[in-house]
Amino acid sequence: MTKASAGNFFEDFRLGAVLRHAVPRTISVGDVSQFSALYGMRFAMQSSDAFAQACGLPCAPLDAMLLFHVIFGKTVPDVSLNAVANLGYAECQFLAPAWPGDSFVAESEVIGLRENSSGQTGIVYVRSTGYNQKGEAVLSFVRWVMVKKRDTSAAAIDPVTPTLAPMVDPEALHIPPDLSLSGYDAGLAGSPNLFEDYVKGETILPIDGMTIEEAEHQIATRLFQNTARGHFDAIVQKKSRFGRRIVYGGHVLNIARSLSFNGLENGCFVAAINGGRHAAPAAAGDTLYCGSQVLETYAFNERSDIGALRIRSVVCKDRVFSEMPDKDNGGVLLDFDYWLLIPRRGAVAEHAT
Amino acid sequence: MTKASAGNFFEDFRLGAVLRHAVPRTISVGDVSQFSALYGMRFAMQSSDAFAQACGLPCAPLDAMLLFHVIFGKTVPDVSLNAVANLGYAECQFLAPAWPGDSFVAESEVIGLRENSSGQTGIVYVRSTGYNQKGEAVLSFVRWVMVKKRDTSAAAIDPVTPTLAPMVDPEALHIPPDLSLSGYDAGLAGSPNLFEDYVKGETILPIDGMTIEEAEHQIATRLFQNTARGHFDAIVQKKSRFGRRIVYGGHVLNIARSLSFNGLENGCFVAAINGGRHAAPAAAGDTLYCGSQVLETYAFNERSDIGALRIRSVVCKDRVFSEMPDKDNGGVLLDFDYWLLIPRRGAVAEHAT
Amino acid sequence: MTKASAGNFFEDFRLGAVLRHAVPRTISVGDVSQFSALYGMRFAMQSSDAFAQACGLPCAPLDAMLLFHVIFGKTVPDVSLNAVANLGYAECQFLAPAWPGDSFVAESEVIGLRENSSGQTGIVYVRSTGYNQKGEAVLSFVRWVMVKKRDTSAAAIDPVTPTLAPMVDPEALHIPPDLSLSGYDAGLAGSPNLFEDYVKGETILPIDGMTIEEAEHQIATRLFQNTARGHFDAIVQKKSRFGRRIVYGGHVLNIARSLSFNGLENGCFVAAINGGRHAAPAAAGDTLYCGSQVLETYAFNERSDIGALRIRSVVCKDRVFSEMPDKDNGGVLLDFDYWLLIPRRGAVAEHAT
Repeated sequence: MTKASAGNFFEDFRLGAVLRHAVPRTISVGDVSQFSALYGMRFAMQSSDAFAQACGLPCAPLDAMLLFHVIFGKTVPDVSLNAVANLGYAECQFLAPAWPGDSFVAESEVIGLRENSSGQTGIVYVRSTGYNQKGEAVLSFVRWVMVKKRDTSAAAIDPVTPTLAPMVDPEALHIPPDLSLSGYDAGLAGSPNLFEDYVKGETILPIDGMTIEEAEHQIATRLFQNTARGHFDAIVQKKSRFGRRIVYGGHVLNIARSLSFNGLENGCFVAAINGGRHAAPAAAGDTLYCGSQVLETYAFNERSDIGALRIRSVVCKDRVFSEMPDKDNGGVLLDFDYWLLIPRRGAVAEHAT
Repeated sequence: MTKASAGNFFEDFRLGAVLRHAVPRTISVGDVSQFSALYGMRFAMQSSDAFAQACGLPCAPLDAMLLFHVIFGKTVPDVSLNAVANLGYAECQFLAPAWPGDSFVAESEVIGLRENSSGQTGIVYVRSTGYNQKGEAVLSFVRWVMVKKRDTSAAAIDPVTPTLAPMVDPEALHIPPDLSLSGYDAGLAGSPNLFEDYVKGETILPIDGMTIEEAEHQIATRLFQNTARGHFDAIVQKKSRFGRRIVYGGHVLNIARSLSFNGLENGCFVAAINGGRHAAPAAAGDTLYCGSQVLETYAFNERSDIGALRIRSVVCKDRVFSEMPDKDNGGVLLDFDYWLLIPRRGAVAEHAT
Repeated sequence: MTKASAGNFFEDFRLGAVLRHAVPRTISVGDVSQFSALYGMRFAMQSSDAFAQACGLPCAPLDAMLLFHVIFGKTVPDVSLNAVANLGYAECQFLAPAWPGDSFVAESEVIGLRENSSGQTGIVYVRSTGYNQKGEAVLSFVRWVMVKKRDTSAAAIDPVTPTLAPMVDPEALHIPPDLSLSGYDAGLAGSPNLFEDYVKGETILPIDGMTIEEAEHQIATRLFQNTARGHFDAIVQKKSRFGRRIVYGGHVLNIARSLSFNGLENGCFVAAINGGRHAAPAAAGDTLYCGSQVLETYAFNERSDIGALRIRSVVCKDRVFSEMPDKDNGGVLLDFDYWLLIPRRGAVAEHAT
């Protein structure tokens, strides 16, 4: 029998099983640079060692989205190689700061299983956790995917659907322990807008667009060591319902984060992802636009220097929209709900501008 | 009102104003590798730590062009987001060595403003300076751009056009302080040709060509955190006078520098840029060829180990030219005038070849 | 006369001559990341510092293929700029471990010359060696290329064809001196299959495919500082027998190594390349599939913790094959024969899975 793995099918998952994922990975400054060049990230805290050091950190921390996708990538060969669709994310929290040079591993627990009525597929829920070389959890999230059955005549199992929080409790968000915002230079970060300047319901509509190329999404997806075949194999994809390679949904997420900089410049840390839904797949040639809306603002009980904004970012393809689209609007690719940490006015020293 | 910035228009600039640019940036060995892989740079001093250390430096310095484009990129959101055209550069000097791991910031002073007779646009002149984490100026240059007016009925201002030097005084060129060329190995750098081997007027005609891909210029432009929209947004560009994405002019500059290696192998440092003119925009699919001409040779008063060559490099698209083209020749994209530092024969130890 | 070099032609080579190649090069963690993102490499030893440290190494070593292509790239301007075809490799051995931050140089000795009967071209055999900054040889290999004559009327020389080993003697393979496999975690590396699980003749057929983009192979080839023109210049290539840019053969090799992970997960070091043949060139748009076969298994006399597998990997384009193809089968691009080091069962501690 061949040693090449075709991945797990729906019947291969057992409730409560813990999957220890390959491959361990060091994220280096080289990976940071790749991420930067693929997305044009401009958040000051992750862009400059000197800026991060002025805020009490040893150096620029890893971008949360880079960490997320590297850990996500590890789960793919065990969880979603035979996925028909990535259905959603929830309860994603960044639990400890991560630095260039850290080495990561990941594991996932199967927390839900539900066969679809068609008998062709089932939904698998996993809680995945990333750990650094010291064994500290740096990241945890739930995702659920629709996975093919190997044998459609196999008997259905008792369905278990986990209860998931509609959003991460903001009081539980992790703030890097040594972060000190008295040295935070908002002008240098690109905007005077701090926590107090954002109001619930406020929208930030798109100005900038980004067109996706095949080489870009393939390079990105390989950077994350994500082996899902639909992103790389034009021949097999020709026979799929898409007719072509589709873009890893995380690539769209990252473009959203990058485009959202214009208007959220001081949203320096993604602290949690409450939910995310890929409404449609992206393909090379699509031009993405991202608009954002402030869903909530949250002032921490114990910290007066930093607050949290709950943001909804929506990505549409091929049109600059002038009001936030509904999930079901034409052209919506991504609807994404997350918590950002952002400095508060009192904590930030005034700098000449 | 939305917090997303659409950038400055002509009326927003004030003579003498100093713009402090976002975003601070550390240039890592990862960025060096990106730059290397995007352009195939082969100058030995920037390619090998061991080679640079044999010349008295702590490690391979950052390529001057990488530094230039990172600093340039910082100026874009404040200076040229609404530019119709980048008209030129002048008085660009590299003032101090820059190393992987250094963190940079940039600011620009408005030194000239002149409305065009159409009343639609005006020309903005800025002197931009990049600083490292110690506050040392590492780079300074003037550029001028044609910027749209927000309100074409706004009253014209008194025009001020700065006087710019036609070339940087070679005696003012900065040579890295610890550079010692007794360990310079010309054979290893790729050519026996040193300062004394070049004569005024000499030309080096193109042999190698490079075809530009969309993914390449987009990755490069994002690496430089340059947010100019015309490079990324195929939908908006479809309605522009170009009908498609145009390539950041700096991408063409870098290809020129890389192609110029063949014949200028020991031109190890770009010390100044006297001027540059983008005669026409480049687009994906264009194949670039670069020819170079020695405009002047200069022997320093105080250093007998290194000299300077004033080089004109011209880039044409889609044709291998057999004599240096005029600026107005068909197919010319770039006409670029700069000072290179190059070892002198007496200073360089003989190595077995 | 122009200083731009057009490279050596067949008449320029002399038997026994030693060519000292430009350009010295430091391979940084940035280059490692580029390599990772271009190919999606997933071998644990090269992917994670923590994993490598658990095996006694100071950090993740450089991937042997990255080192091979960087050294190969140095030889191109002197050896194969006027090559019509890269005909083969042999006797490639990795002689010492290589680490991020090491600086490399290369030289080649001409060991064979044979003019073709056409009088248009000749075959040049060189033995190329790469050295680190301490002067230690890290890599040595023979390759032979068909090179154009400058002057087809030049007199033929006495032909000398070197005798080359059909395979590298496995007892001569180099194992990193500090490697200790008691900490090797096979589950974390992605598979329980160790040395004892592979049998001679066994095949591992392809599941995953990878489609090549122009930007990807150009970025890769520049990363290796390989200047062969056919990979970069669409205008000149339009007039070639291929009609378009062709992909550096080493890009195909690397994709083969990456695709071979699925089934050879613990084949952690490429220790030698016995031979390689590019049966046909690849071009952008081709989708590659790779199958592997175990040609031999070898247990070292002096080491009970690690063994060697002699592997044949074959790459086909645009078809998932279900049995190992012959060299002359349609669509075969690469037939590649190499030695892998792989842990033995007794040496590897059991880990929870």
